[in-house]
Amino acid sequence: MQVLANKDFNDWARQRQMHMETVLERVLPSADLAPQRLHQAMRYAALDGGKRVRPLLAFAAGELTSAPVDRVETVAAAVELIHVYSLVHDDLPCMDNDELRRGKPTCHVAFDEATALLVGDSLQSLAFQLIAERTVAHSPSIQLELIRLLALASGSRGMAGGQAIDLESVGKTLTQTELEFMHIHKTGALIRAAVLLGAHAGSGLDSSQLDAINHYATCVGLAFQVMDDILDVEASTATLGKTAGKDAEQNKPTYVSILGLEAARKLAEDLHHNALLALPEFGESARRLAQIADFIVQRQS
Amino acid sequence: MQVLANKDFNDWARQRQMHMETVLERVLPSADLAPQRLHQAMRYAALDGGKRVRPLLAFAAGELTSAPVDRVETVAAAVELIHVYSLVHDDLPCMDNDELRRGKPTCHVAFDEATALLVGDSLQSLAFQLIAERTVAHSPSIQLELIRLLALASGSRGMAGGQAIDLESVGKTLTQTELEFMHIHKTGALIRAAVLLGAHAGSGLDSSQLDAINHYATCVGLAFQVMDDILDVEASTATLGKTAGKDAEQNKPTYVSILGLEAARKLAEDLHHNALLALPEFGESARRLAQIADFIVQRQS
Repeated sequence: MQVLANKDFNDWARQRQMHMETVLERVLPSADLAPQRLHQAMRYAALDGGKRVRPLLAFAAGELTSAPVDRVETVAAAVELIHVYSLVHDDLPCMDNDELRRGKPTCHVAFDEATALLVGDSLQSLAFQLIAERTVAHSPSIQLELIRLLALASGSRGMAGGQAIDLESVGKTLTQTELEFMHIHKTGALIRAAVLLGAHAGSGLDSSQLDAINHYATCVGLAFQVMDDILDVEASTATLGKTAGKDAEQNKPTYVSILGLEAARKLAEDLHHNALLALPEFGESARRLAQIADFIVQRQS
Repeated sequence: MQVLANKDFNDWARQRQMHMETVLERVLPSADLAPQRLHQAMRYAALDGGKRVRPLLAFAAGELTSAPVDRVETVAAAVELIHVYSLVHDDLPCMDNDELRRGKPTCHVAFDEATALLVGDSLQSLAFQLIAERTVAHSPSIQLELIRLLALASGSRGMAGGQAIDLESVGKTLTQTELEFMHIHKTGALIRAAVLLGAHAGSGLDSSQLDAINHYATCVGLAFQVMDDILDVEASTATLGKTAGKDAEQNKPTYVSILGLEAARKLAEDLHHNALLALPEFGESARRLAQIADFIVQRQS
């Protein structure tokens, strides 16, 4: 049963990952276009990599509201471009100074720092260009609301703000609440945006449904981060595709450093359980969201 | 006559600059809000500085179409936030490595590199948030088009792309055409966006009017850059508020290095003249756009 369910999910996920790759291939400027080096570097950073967790969440959330694929693929691509830009900037020497990402040299290593800076900047602009120029919602007003949600999730009150809190916490002792506050911004905001944008690309949701989706997204976002912290300790660099053990080396507070490995595992399971509690009211249409929650706590990399 | 006209323009410009300051004060997150250091740095970079040329252009273009002030102020602020983000990133050590901007230490000097990186990233998100969440056009569809224009002007086919071309040209000999291609992207795209967004914030424009505005914006954008190159040679660091003589020191191709000082001055005057040729069809409503063109070639800093 478990095997079958996994195979079904794996097939679904692999199809969407390939679909996402095709969409990103198409929306990223061609490497032949001037400025070529910048466009090559944008494609290097964004293509052929990653689990595409945020696009999978957007596609899965789109199933709740029967969102047309051409709308969901656009919001999924926009969220993924924001995510990739943040990885490129986070890897820079003045931030995490990381040399390996998705099993390849990071963008500033493969190209140079200035180019990587512009890659991140340009990917952010491209995300907003995409979501403004294609139809992604039932009405232009709802589309404006989606752009606002994505901008909020990306900026100083969302992802970039979480990164700033992370910087300030290096070498400090945080409480679990402070750590949670950081991650709700750093990774949670964009994961939540992926779910909300995917759902909004379809028919309307009532406020109780929106609350349920928000609850799911918050739990899944935190579970994802707790697992990241666990994997940074447990997995090898080869499995992760990025440098393992960086958190401890950089003296960063993590769920593992604060709670210990066992309690962190328990927390991930509790968050997983909590995420699933939000889904029954959507019936069978929430099947993929449930499977993604499973995947997030079971993943090995 | 000249003195009176200048006083009239100076008063108009000073009022809009102060107005812009008030709007930016209001839209930037308070320095008390977490993450405080990031918000302090965003305010440090964006407030109390600069000539606000792009907002002035947006306000002036808004007069062509009787754009309501609450719409123009929003597009003006969004364009200025994009401009400020680009300055913060351009000043970073991996780019121009500049320590002085608008008469103050640059953001990464006053704070640190990682914070300056996040300041730029967050200001870009804030620009799109603003222009999505406030009403800036007659209809949500037109508003989506404005967001698309701003994103295009900011990204790899606009400002960030121009910056990449600039990086590739250091130490190279460019033709005047190649230099122009770079500047049409690096500074021209956002200046054009300021004019177009300001005009679109009001009533509709027909295609001949749009062509005329595009022509004006292209000429003024280039004239602005030619004057920048001239001032980098002629003005002092104190007058400029940023380090003078950087272009020659960094072996960057400029209009002065390619054409010589006299021919560069002549080019600025020709562009000025050409910009004004686009305006008569708008009658008195184009008065401020004409005065900004005058100001751009007469400025001393």
